[in-house]
Amino acid sequence: MSKFIYLFKEADQSMKNLLGGKGANLGEMTSLDLPIPQGFTVSTEACTQYYDDGQKINETIKKQVFEALAKTEKIVNKKFGDNENPFLVSVRSGARASMPGMMDTILNLGLNDEAVIGLAKQTDNERFAYDSYRRFITMFSDVVMEISKSNYEKIFDAKKEEKGIKLDTDLTAEDLKEIVEAFKAKYKEIKGEEFPQDPKDQLITAIEAVFRSWDNPRAQYYRRMNNIPYEWGTAVNVQSMVFGNMGDTSGTGVAFTRNPATGEKELYGEYLFNAQGEDVVAGIRTPKPISELEDDNKAIYNEFLEISSKLEQHYKDMQDLEFTIEKGKLYILQTRNGKRTAQAALKIAIDMVEEGLLNEKEAVLKVEPKQLDTLLHPQFDPKALESAEVITTGLNASPGAATGKVVFSSERATEMSENGDTVILVREETSPEDIEGMSVAEGVLTARGGMTSHAAVVARGMGTCCVAGAHEVRVNEEELFFIIKGKKYKEGDYISLDGSTGKVYGEKVKTMEATVSGDFAKLMKWADKFRALNVRANADNKRDASQAYDFGAEGIGLCRTEHMFFEGSRIKAVREMIVAKTVEEREKALNKLLPMQKKDFVELYEAMQGFPVTIRYLDPPLHEFLPNDKEDIEDLAKDLGITFDELNSTINELHETNPMLGHRGVRLSITYPEIAVMQTRAVIEAAIEVNKKGLKVKPEIMIPLVSELKELKYVKAEVVKTADAIIKEAGVELEYSVGTMIEIPRACLTADDIAKEAEFFSFGTNDLTQMGFGFSRDDAGKFLADYYKKNIFNDDPFAHIDQKGIGRLMKIAVEDGRKTRPDIKLGICGEHGGDPASVEFCHNIGLSYVSCSPFRVPIARLAAAQANIKNPRK
Amino acid sequence: MSKFIYLFKEADQSMKNLLGGKGANLGEMTSLDLPIPQGFTVSTEACTQYYDDGQKINETIKKQVFEALAKTEKIVNKKFGDNENPFLVSVRSGARASMPGMMDTILNLGLNDEAVIGLAKQTDNERFAYDSYRRFITMFSDVVMEISKSNYEKIFDAKKEEKGIKLDTDLTAEDLKEIVEAFKAKYKEIKGEEFPQDPKDQLITAIEAVFRSWDNPRAQYYRRMNNIPYEWGTAVNVQSMVFGNMGDTSGTGVAFTRNPATGEKELYGEYLFNAQGEDVVAGIRTPKPISELEDDNKAIYNEFLEISSKLEQHYKDMQDLEFTIEKGKLYILQTRNGKRTAQAALKIAIDMVEEGLLNEKEAVLKVEPKQLDTLLHPQFDPKALESAEVITTGLNASPGAATGKVVFSSERATEMSENGDTVILVREETSPEDIEGMSVAEGVLTARGGMTSHAAVVARGMGTCCVAGAHEVRVNEEELFFIIKGKKYKEGDYISLDGSTGKVYGEKVKTMEATVSGDFAKLMKWADKFRALNVRANADNKRDASQAYDFGAEGIGLCRTEHMFFEGSRIKAVREMIVAKTVEEREKALNKLLPMQKKDFVELYEAMQGFPVTIRYLDPPLHEFLPNDKEDIEDLAKDLGITFDELNSTINELHETNPMLGHRGVRLSITYPEIAVMQTRAVIEAAIEVNKKGLKVKPEIMIPLVSELKELKYVKAEVVKTADAIIKEAGVELEYSVGTMIEIPRACLTADDIAKEAEFFSFGTNDLTQMGFGFSRDDAGKFLADYYKKNIFNDDPFAHIDQKGIGRLMKIAVEDGRKTRPDIKLGICGEHGGDPASVEFCHNIGLSYVSCSPFRVPIARLAAAQANIKNPRK
Repeated sequence: MSKFIYLFKEADQSMKNLLGGKGANLGEMTSLDLPIPQGFTVSTEACTQYYDDGQKINETIKKQVFEALAKTEKIVNKKFGDNENPFLVSVRSGARASMPGMMDTILNLGLNDEAVIGLAKQTDNERFAYDSYRRFITMFSDVVMEISKSNYEKIFDAKKEEKGIKLDTDLTAEDLKEIVEAFKAKYKEIKGEEFPQDPKDQLITAIEAVFRSWDNPRAQYYRRMNNIPYEWGTAVNVQSMVFGNMGDTSGTGVAFTRNPATGEKELYGEYLFNAQGEDVVAGIRTPKPISELEDDNKAIYNEFLEISSKLEQHYKDMQDLEFTIEKGKLYILQTRNGKRTAQAALKIAIDMVEEGLLNEKEAVLKVEPKQLDTLLHPQFDPKALESAEVITTGLNASPGAATGKVVFSSERATEMSENGDTVILVREETSPEDIEGMSVAEGVLTARGGMTSHAAVVARGMGTCCVAGAHEVRVNEEELFFIIKGKKYKEGDYISLDGSTGKVYGEKVKTMEATVSGDFAKLMKWADKFRALNVRANADNKRDASQAYDFGAEGIGLCRTEHMFFEGSRIKAVREMIVAKTVEEREKALNKLLPMQKKDFVELYEAMQGFPVTIRYLDPPLHEFLPNDKEDIEDLAKDLGITFDELNSTINELHETNPMLGHRGVRLSITYPEIAVMQTRAVIEAAIEVNKKGLKVKPEIMIPLVSELKELKYVKAEVVKTADAIIKEAGVELEYSVGTMIEIPRACLTADDIAKEAEFFSFGTNDLTQMGFGFSRDDAGKFLADYYKKNIFNDDPFAHIDQKGIGRLMKIAVEDGRKTRPDIKLGICGEHGGDPASVEFCHNIGLSYVSCSPFRVPIARLAAAQANIKNPRK
Repeated sequence: MSKFIYLFKEADQSMKNLLGGKGANLGEMTSLDLPIPQGFTVSTEACTQYYDDGQKINETIKKQVFEALAKTEKIVNKKFGDNENPFLVSVRSGARASMPGMMDTILNLGLNDEAVIGLAKQTDNERFAYDSYRRFITMFSDVVMEISKSNYEKIFDAKKEEKGIKLDTDLTAEDLKEIVEAFKAKYKEIKGEEFPQDPKDQLITAIEAVFRSWDNPRAQYYRRMNNIPYEWGTAVNVQSMVFGNMGDTSGTGVAFTRNPATGEKELYGEYLFNAQGEDVVAGIRTPKPISELEDDNKAIYNEFLEISSKLEQHYKDMQDLEFTIEKGKLYILQTRNGKRTAQAALKIAIDMVEEGLLNEKEAVLKVEPKQLDTLLHPQFDPKALESAEVITTGLNASPGAATGKVVFSSERATEMSENGDTVILVREETSPEDIEGMSVAEGVLTARGGMTSHAAVVARGMGTCCVAGAHEVRVNEEELFFIIKGKKYKEGDYISLDGSTGKVYGEKVKTMEATVSGDFAKLMKWADKFRALNVRANADNKRDASQAYDFGAEGIGLCRTEHMFFEGSRIKAVREMIVAKTVEEREKALNKLLPMQKKDFVELYEAMQGFPVTIRYLDPPLHEFLPNDKEDIEDLAKDLGITFDELNSTINELHETNPMLGHRGVRLSITYPEIAVMQTRAVIEAAIEVNKKGLKVKPEIMIPLVSELKELKYVKAEVVKTADAIIKEAGVELEYSVGTMIEIPRACLTADDIAKEAEFFSFGTNDLTQMGFGFSRDDAGKFLADYYKKNIFNDDPFAHIDQKGIGRLMKIAVEDGRKTRPDIKLGICGEHGGDPASVEFCHNIGLSYVSCSPFRVPIARLAAAQANIKNPRK
């Protein structure tokens, strides 16, 4: 029979997959002899079993739960369901990867009408007992029974108003007794039955609720964003309660061993006396900074300092701790590697090397590559800031610069950003339901909550700019406006946030480009030492190419020449080419494009300073260059000197049922080889010109959409004939190569053939994913939402390479291509080239380089280093 | 150094790939000591070399040609270019597969102004010498120099008119001398230079012309139609001339060892005295039946009879021979397995078994499966024939029944058939340029030419119905009409042809379905003994299913349920379902469909008499069920009781950029599982009902477009839940299985996963080809023409499985699927299932069955048998 339950003392750090991060760390800390309230972990396998059994906890698991419970009772010397000395527990989720705030927690479980009396007697603290009971009723109702908390909050707030008090802590035991009665009545009113009194039932239904929460919409969204498989499941930790709400010698708090926003080496956190954990994170009362604990209770502070330092040394990473003080005794409730900003991640990694805690390789592994994203996007232009009006200042909860239109709900944020707007989400305070809105927003502004509030923690994790706890902001979420000092800001108005200073501006503020310097540059230098993959950029113009060069790109992996065809006088020549009736007419139009195209390439070669430049020949179907509506067609016809009907019939002829699967890529060059000839002239003449200036350019000509050797052979013959004639004519030496995009399944399957002609392969994983899965990106949006909801897909195959299917095609192509041409150059230029997980995959299958958008170049460099550290290339 | 040239005496039958069919057979016949004019073969490798060298014959090959020529001169004791006793040769193509009439031939090569005098002296026959020279000038100009024959024909006809004679043979030596002078002047006028006089130059340029003809448009088309790779190339045979035009003791002819139309065992052919081969096939003079040769020259006739019988025994197949009689001596110019009609193929195969020449397995191999097609299509309804008016009768050149609109050119035939018309091509006589028109036409009618005329031979090869030599027909190809007995028939008028009787009807004649009986049934019975693959049919209704059953289908491999959704009251319910806003509304609409769908399945099960029936669930995107134009939308909106705007916005929402890659197949069932539930109810309830009547139906439920295990798992769970509940409720036993179409590349690549849930795979090779190649059938038409022209594709991957790429995906799926589920049932239900080459591939990779349209079931049965005879399954 499978073992589904582990006592903390049976567990350790290595059991993370089975017991989740929280469970494994509670085990580890138990073995380190730290003050851990004891308990047990229901494993992730039990979660999988729960789903396999049709969302039911089976008898085997139940039996093991109660056995573990019995063992824990012996350890804590209390009895579950005992009315004299009741044993209360917390029930908390804990997945393999930390997913803060995504799943559910229930505290004070085990209480009922009799146990509360026992608890009051036993602790001699009636107020505490009923405070715990009202908390338990609220949480249990919310999490397990799906009764909204607001039902209870109304009663609670009414009582505070009736008594004329502000703070929860001012409520008396009597008040709380009445509140509990009212809560129970409310529960009965809604559910039509009494609040559950059997602690064992409470426990099993609570565990079920946590399992269920693994698949709630916000957890699904978080998993997809973070590439966490549904199959992992969550563990559940059942831990004996210690109480921060036993009066003024009790309290609870959270702390980071270093500053998670800046990386400074200082204990950083908040705590509240006479409170339970939810009070700190929910931002209901404003907590005190952890440094004040030293004054409040120096012994406890020192003990905590020692423990946190010990844990940081032990885990070799910055720790995020939860603790509770029960009547003057310190307990650690959990520890985990803390979420941090990109700046902090860099600083911590570098400091730890200087402190001797890490070596350079380990340091490189400590920074999440995709986090760097926040450092690579524009910052406010300091000049523009001088004149911008600061309307208020809040906490600098997550750094970055954000400008956008105000929205007040997650739904509107999603809607407006889908319409192309950049938005700032403004909320009284955020809750887990806001996660989608936060991820699409440029920035988040909250009126309440501290540095460890939901908004702050989640925004930092996402790399979204956040200003939290801006108390001057009065938000009216119903009527869609907020007021600062009497001034009203409505939905759609522009504001700007500086997440590094906490300042809020009442207008659009100009931004400027990021640079790589300081800690960032230092870590990138280490990364470059360890990586085996080259990193190139996808760039179609001088500006992007220069940006890429500054970010460390070692070449251009993809220049999409069609992007050069849309500008003013060019589009006209392109259109003339399309409507041409003969090869001669077409060549005439192409000759107009030639000098412009040549200039493009000169600029690119110069920007890349001799690094290789891969130029992809015309790819999209020709109808993309023609207008659609009647008026535009009329104008163009006039412009081209042909009749409306003539042009219209050309447009109709070019119409395609499935343009993705139509007349494009190499297929164009086969029908109109003169296009490839013109592009070759431009590529080669530009290279000759630039080389005369002393650079040593070696152009790489890339033919797209090849599915069959003979396609490439035909076009390559035209290219080589043209190129060699120009080179001979010029009397110079010039090396160039001709290769192909591998972006059609059949190209992978016949790579041994194609490599006979192709001097390099560059995987176009966007199209490969579309064709391999048989759905187009444009159309998949409609049904992929259902796929995520029903856990058919864990994540977006356009964001992360699907290793099982699409990756297998790539592996076939790599192996077979190398069989034919052992020194074939292999790269990737799909958008996956900047995704860390995909970069790791590309490293593992033996590619030579990845190419991505300029802003993702540093991410790819770091990801490539991590891949090679984990799996060194021979 | 490669050997590019082989003397006939160095060659034999086994060298077909290297020397082409003609060359190999000339070698074989030489070794059999038959009277073969000697010569040599320039190999297919030389042809490949010619193309690799940029369409030039290199020095190595030239040198070998002249060496072989020298050796041949010794054999025939004449000298090339000698003015006393000149050695003349024919230069003829000869590919690996016989391609009658597709490539070029030059006779009498070696003649020039001096040699013609020598020839006249040496043969003492001036008329013969100049007749040969004028033929040579015409052919050489046409084939090698691309000067149209019509330039010479005008001169020739003018001379005949001037002299008031009808027959070419009535021209005197003087006439021919003058004609030769006029021809040479014409040549000079057009080319600006004298007609080439150097025999060696003539020879090399002629060989080049034959190589070039390998890639002319009609050869390209023929290759594509017959699945012959461009890479094979053609050989060239240089053979010493023997002359049928040396007077009345000379002649030339063609003959088949059995009747190629009926299969009767009788020598069958035609000959002409004082003629060269071209005169017989071109239909210029009407040749005599071969039987009359017995009267004309009994000794020669007997000798020919003996040789032809010897060759038939030797090759164990019906032979098609060309012969020439030179001054009373018989020469065999070539032999090959003769093209024949399907009826003839069956009769010959069966007769040869009875004659003890073949065993049953060999006989099964002798019939081309795709030829059976002609037997499976409708024949004239005998009742309709009674009242139809016979307007004329010609030769029954190729059997079958054809009804269609009259057209007079290949281009119009293609155009009109693309517009969905069925056409009959009517021509004075056909030429190789007509091949495309002949292949798209239902039938061919010619006014001139015999049973071995171009029209007759090509039509038989294609299985196209043909009535040839209908002398009463007066064709005016310019003004697009023909006249029979004063009555005019214009383009677009209907006529009907009976290729088995030669009768022509001046109207549409009703046809009826074919049956499998007689020789056909006998051969199919043998085939069934030897095959390992099962053969099923694709059928969506009772009628098709019954037809398939009659043709020997062993089940339904694909029932496309959406075809059932388009009828009258159904389409309304389908549309209600599509516009439904809630699950309840959708279920209401689906409930209307349920009884109809159930009835469909009852009918199918009954038609198949207990054979398995595979039902594919709803596949196409929903927008296919909605109207497009404004008026229809208005009508439908009224019908559905919603506003125009509401319906229009639904239609717009459903619009897809790439519908092929859109929301369809299993994706529909994931969004709307209630559709799968309804279809399951219908499948299972129908099976229970039919089984109560005593049949034993085991439905196979097929989920389309799966690319990921979890898609199938999700839908299968719905299906099984629904099915099991119905079965339990009914209190019966019913077996059913759930499987999937494998039609997306990723499904092949993750087949090990998918086989965990799929109890069977059925390859949907249409979509697999589209996605594997990355082009849609609808759009590829535009560029595939260029692909054929430029030899990038040899044939249509939608007609024959691309074994290298798409086939590799299939092999991966077969191997990986079996690893997970060793007894998984594997089939194919794409249109390839009825293509013989694809059936052979399916056999070889180990599928369990193929499924194709009912009319192709016998073809598939025969192809499956041949595959297993060639490569027996263990």
